[in-house]
Amino acid sequence: MKLSEDSIIFLIQCPDQRGLVASISNFFFQRSFNILSCKQYSDLLTGKYFMRIELSLKDLRSSRKQLEEEFTDFGKPLELSWSVRYTDESQRMAILVSKTSHCLYDLLLRWKEDEIPCDIPLIISNHPKLESVADQFKIPFHCLPVSAETKPEQEAEIRKLLKAHHIDLVVLARYMQVLSPDFVQEYDGRIINIHHAFLPAFQGANPYQRAYERGVKMIGATAHYATEDLDEGPIIEQDVQRVVHEETPDELKQIGRDVERIVLSRAVQAHLERRIIISGRRTIIFKR
Amino acid sequence: MKLSEDSIIFLIQCPDQRGLVASISNFFFQRSFNILSCKQYSDLLTGKYFMRIELSLKDLRSSRKQLEEEFTDFGKPLELSWSVRYTDESQRMAILVSKTSHCLYDLLLRWKEDEIPCDIPLIISNHPKLESVADQFKIPFHCLPVSAETKPEQEAEIRKLLKAHHIDLVVLARYMQVLSPDFVQEYDGRIINIHHAFLPAFQGANPYQRAYERGVKMIGATAHYATEDLDEGPIIEQDVQRVVHEETPDELKQIGRDVERIVLSRAVQAHLERRIIISGRRTIIFKR
Amino acid sequence: MKLSEDSIIFLIQCPDQRGLVASISNFFFQRSFNILSCKQYSDLLTGKYFMRIELSLKDLRSSRKQLEEEFTDFGKPLELSWSVRYTDESQRMAILVSKTSHCLYDLLLRWKEDEIPCDIPLIISNHPKLESVADQFKIPFHCLPVSAETKPEQEAEIRKLLKAHHIDLVVLARYMQVLSPDFVQEYDGRIINIHHAFLPAFQGANPYQRAYERGVKMIGATAHYATEDLDEGPIIEQDVQRVVHEETPDELKQIGRDVERIVLSRAVQAHLERRIIISGRRTIIFKR
Amino acid sequence: MKLSEDSIIFLIQCPDQRGLVASISNFFFQRSFNILSCKQYSDLLTGKYFMRIELSLKDLRSSRKQLEEEFTDFGKPLELSWSVRYTDESQRMAILVSKTSHCLYDLLLRWKEDEIPCDIPLIISNHPKLESVADQFKIPFHCLPVSAETKPEQEAEIRKLLKAHHIDLVVLARYMQVLSPDFVQEYDGRIINIHHAFLPAFQGANPYQRAYERGVKMIGATAHYATEDLDEGPIIEQDVQRVVHEETPDELKQIGRDVERIVLSRAVQAHLERRIIISGRRTIIFKR
Repeated sequence: MKLSEDSIIFLIQCPDQRGLVASISNFFFQRSFNILSCKQYSDLLTGKYFMRIELSLKDLRSSRKQLEEEFTDFGKPLELSWSVRYTDESQRMAILVSKTSHCLYDLLLRWKEDEIPCDIPLIISNHPKLESVADQFKIPFHCLPVSAETKPEQEAEIRKLLKAHHIDLVVLARYMQVLSPDFVQEYDGRIINIHHAFLPAFQGANPYQRAYERGVKMIGATAHYATEDLDEGPIIEQDVQRVVHEETPDELKQIGRDVERIVLSRAVQAHLERRIIISGRRTIIFKR
Repeated sequence: MKLSEDSIIFLIQCPDQRGLVASISNFFFQRSFNILSCKQYSDLLTGKYFMRIELSLKDLRSSRKQLEEEFTDFGKPLELSWSVRYTDESQRMAILVSKTSHCLYDLLLRWKEDEIPCDIPLIISNHPKLESVADQFKIPFHCLPVSAETKPEQEAEIRKLLKAHHIDLVVLARYMQVLSPDFVQEYDGRIINIHHAFLPAFQGANPYQRAYERGVKMIGATAHYATEDLDEGPIIEQDVQRVVHEETPDELKQIGRDVERIVLSRAVQAHLERRIIISGRRTIIFKR
Repeated sequence: MKLSEDSIIFLIQCPDQRGLVASISNFFFQRSFNILSCKQYSDLLTGKYFMRIELSLKDLRSSRKQLEEEFTDFGKPLELSWSVRYTDESQRMAILVSKTSHCLYDLLLRWKEDEIPCDIPLIISNHPKLESVADQFKIPFHCLPVSAETKPEQEAEIRKLLKAHHIDLVVLARYMQVLSPDFVQEYDGRIINIHHAFLPAFQGANPYQRAYERGVKMIGATAHYATEDLDEGPIIEQDVQRVVHEETPDELKQIGRDVERIVLSRAVQAHLERRIIISGRRTIIFKR
Repeated sequence: MKLSEDSIIFLIQCPDQRGLVASISNFFFQRSFNILSCKQYSDLLTGKYFMRIELSLKDLRSSRKQLEEEFTDFGKPLELSWSVRYTDESQRMAILVSKTSHCLYDLLLRWKEDEIPCDIPLIISNHPKLESVADQFKIPFHCLPVSAETKPEQEAEIRKLLKAHHIDLVVLARYMQVLSPDFVQEYDGRIINIHHAFLPAFQGANPYQRAYERGVKMIGATAHYATEDLDEGPIIEQDVQRVVHEETPDELKQIGRDVERIVLSRAVQAHLERRIIISGRRTIIFKR
């Protein structure tokens, strides 16, 4: 539910146990909170419990720090892992691109339409080509070309920029460079990548060419969190489009662009709206 | 979640108000219930609140009657409307058909595969054609041919049969007869019909022919609760299939059959799994 | 098939008759043409025959005028209706908009990516809001505000602009004004409109609100040729997206935007690639 | 186009060359044939040309043998590979199954509804479980249980049965045994298998379990021609269904059943309607 009013969103996971809904909802009821939305999921296979609870921010009677301390104390005996977000505090997203513009444009257009709730303080690229797109939307553009030798220092430069701008979420919008394990670990669960195939099919390079050669009847795209193993991170969103034998690899690419941009934007939106909990290689995605 | 263990399912609706989750979950926690699943929805436009809560039946410490009386008392100040179902009590479904078999077969096959949790004590038709299908699945078949004159008495006969067999749900699986307002009212919210078009497009007769003439690029089907106004009842499920100019009305019919049977079966399944709350002309469908 | 080489495209319709493929393909074979693609469709219900034939332009041994005269003579006994296009002659498209930008952006981005083969000499709006979008893509923007009194003269102004710029195709990209019958007739088969619903469902105003109230489980969009009767013209393309009870009318609008822009762009592309033949209220759409 | 009248269907492939449409259509025009449908595809990447041409059988003025001899002579200089089918000659299909019934039922129901144009003289299984299904449709059922030792002799038995019944097409409707290379070669291009995943993802065993563990957001099924390498044969049809984190592996299986049966039936239908040409690892599928 897209709310005009500001809210507090808790994402919680813990071992499943009797009375969780009652005790968590009581915690907030005793503090006079109105629950705007409460979604949960008990994974019967692993015995884990997941909850997303959204509260009206205007009901907050204490400081944010105090609320969090009280919830920490409350959560200890239940072994809760949790995070909280206040929607009046802006989130900061950086977009990394190379030469293709369709995913970048899609993110920027949705951001302008207020579909994606964040600030975008910078766009980083290893290539100058998309500077004009950044200019159109008045977002600073940093060009950091990468060669085999300069790769480590340029990545260090990127990380410095992300830190300087207090970036919460890094989106790889068809950024064609592999990131170092260090980088990925530092932003664990905060880097979203788009792969132009229906994973786990066609991992790696040239998926459309390989899809053509294999003669598949649908092509797809996958948005996932980046992990050290390329294309192996937890999947956030996927979609496909039907194709026919007449379509050449170039036409598959064009058809695929529409799938890629929608899949990436949906994933970014779900992340920024705090609707995702990562659980091992799987993601729990709560509907809005 | 399809559970092997038996459960108690409450469907609840009421005016939205502070503390609902806490107080309802507390009610069950105090009675030592484990909550298997709890889904809710606050309709911010109408101020209504909806909940589906599923409890482990083996946790029940009192009689069913006592639980219901206590919940009645508990619910009064909150203005709860609710119903309850115990999954160890079987539900009884009647299927009404005419001459086309695809929806009937689909229901019976899923029923045999235990995808549809119910008993099917009888199939009723206004035509003898599908008797052999009923025989295949060893279900009693009642043929009640309808003419303009015999319609009222045959409908009375149908209602007598439904009553005699304690039918909970009536499924119109391409039963081509309009039911009387009395009949529909008696089984309010318990008759599911399949319309072979994407409602509200092509209400009424011959939808595939009209879809062909209008040149639509997708055809669909709609499962809905029957109400007095034909094809105007609350929609449960819809789906579509892409078509092209080459397809004749007869081919649209064939393609449509696949959509119809899946849409109807999904709707029946959602109803029997107690995942639907009707709210005016809309339905709240909780995911399994 | 997206070809790098230039081609000649004939769109043909006529009464179905023995030997059509042989005689038409012979006509071109005798003139040493290589047939790049030849698609046909015999409508057995109406006895009509439709063909799209694409030839290599570099095989043309005569003047274009002479080819067309010879084909006219050839076609008379077969009662052919036909049109021809040479892909080295640019097509000129005007876009009419009001205040919403998503369809406009989608067209402009695809145009920049060379997915839409045309020139766009102007964008016309009844509102100044989208001027900055036109500026981003360096396309002249004409703002012609419309009131009840000024409507006829402003429409005359639009038609003057279209004529001055030799416009071949007018795209109504969420242009919220009804056009006069005269205008529509002048550009018969050359005005494409996007309606934000799955026609024939929810014709007219506020389709998303009405879709919400009716409780449909999918929302759609329809691109069609404009005719005098609003929303009754031949359908070119449709698509839908699944929705759930939780989505508010505003969220349906947001979801619908993605469907609208893809549906409109596909329709414009099919038109400009000369893959559409209009036949009464239906369209024959040849695959690329 | 599903025709009530009988027809002759040629499937043709050859090197692409100038004048193919003209010369092939002339061949049939000179013999007074009415062309009911003519579909073609030029693969610009490989320089290959494919055609499906359907003629009215009642126009045949010579013997079938003579037509075929004349076409052989005609085709030699053009290097045509081709096959022909007369729709008044029945095709004979065998279905191989193990224990799951959903694909078998779907094929049999469509066969009864005349959607699948063939005779089904036998069903073979390595397990007695589905005998009652075969009985329902009055089709002889052969149970040939397979163990590690008996596998070769039982496969020999199967091949004897297929030969004795002059089988044209073998459908593996969830037959859980790998066939020997000899068997596959003998029925090259005439064995259709259904794999319960979106190939090339999740080749091999337990695809639903692995899809669950990988956390994919859609599950699929693939119908393909059997080749020596398991799950590597030319793909005929694929489809997917969206799933969410709440669905257990068992529920994925249930959802997948609907995808499998539709995908397999579409593939069988396309094969029997002679709408498929195999080209290496790819298939050309002409629309009806």
